[in-house]
This record gives sequence, C-alpha cells and structure tokens, in this order.
Amino acid sequence: MTRARVLIRPKEGILDPQGQAVERALPALGFDGVANVHVGRLVELDVDDVARVPEMCERLLANPLIEDYEVIEVHE
Amino acid sequence: MTRARVLIRPKEGILDPQGQAVERALPALGFDGVANVHVGRLVELDVDDVARVPEMCERLLANPLIEDYEVIEVHE
Repeated sequence: MTRARVLIRPKEGILDPQGQAVERALPALGFDGVANVHVGRLVELDVDDVARVPEMCERLLANPLIEDYEVIEVHE
Repeated sequence: MTRARVLIRPKEGILDPQGQAVERALPALGFDGVANVHVGRLVELDVDDVARVPEMCERLLANPLIEDYEVIEVHE
C-alpha cells in the first residue's frame, strides 16, 4: 500500500476565518514576523491505488466548491 | 520569509473520530483498499524565523496534550 497525504486548503479568495484568527493571535502572544496564515485539513491514508485519491477528494474528503486539494505520496 | 507548513495529527492512541468516519465512508462509496485513515489539521504560514514555529505550535496552533505536530519548510 502507498501512504498518501492530502492537503486541503480554502481556495484562493474564499474566506479563511481560522487563518485570520491565528494571524491576529500570534502577535498578541509575542510572535511577530508572521504573514499569510492559512488553516486547512490534513488527511493521511494507506491506499492500494494512489491514482484514486483525487476522486476520493472530489467525492468525500474535500469540498471542491470552496477547497483545493493536493495529494502527496509519502515514503517513510 | 520562510513558508512553513505545520501538520497536526491526533497523537497515537488518541481517538480520531473523523478518521474513523472517513475510513468507513470510503468503502460505501466504492473505494476499497483503504486503511489507517487519519484526519488532522494543516497550518501554513510565512515566518521570519522558522525556529519559532514549534513554540507557536505549543502555545496556539496545536493542543500538545492530544496532538503531535510536524513542521516542514516549504521551498516553492
């Protein structure tokens, strides 16, 4: 089986309230020099056929209307 | 600035109900040959000093009691 890592992010131009909240909270905690914060989801799974993962994203893992996804094969 | 990617996952042995739900749903949608599904969070941010990101994880981004985090520098 192949270990697949799926990174799911809000699409460009779609509101990212979690990212905004983190970006505002970090300086208040003393962490300056932080920008472009985005919060998304991470799905990791073992699959027989990694070529089917994009279809899994379209149908279940992501919301393709508002999210982009990226599939990475992990070799550990 | 450096682009940092933070992968946040439930700790080993901590319940991962989202992962379980996905693992059950995929075969019902016709995706067989899937195992060890885990769902976590993804935080991506530009930072002046990537060495401070683990501290940001400890204090804000992750819950170190129940989550592990991994910081990756992204060169795009």
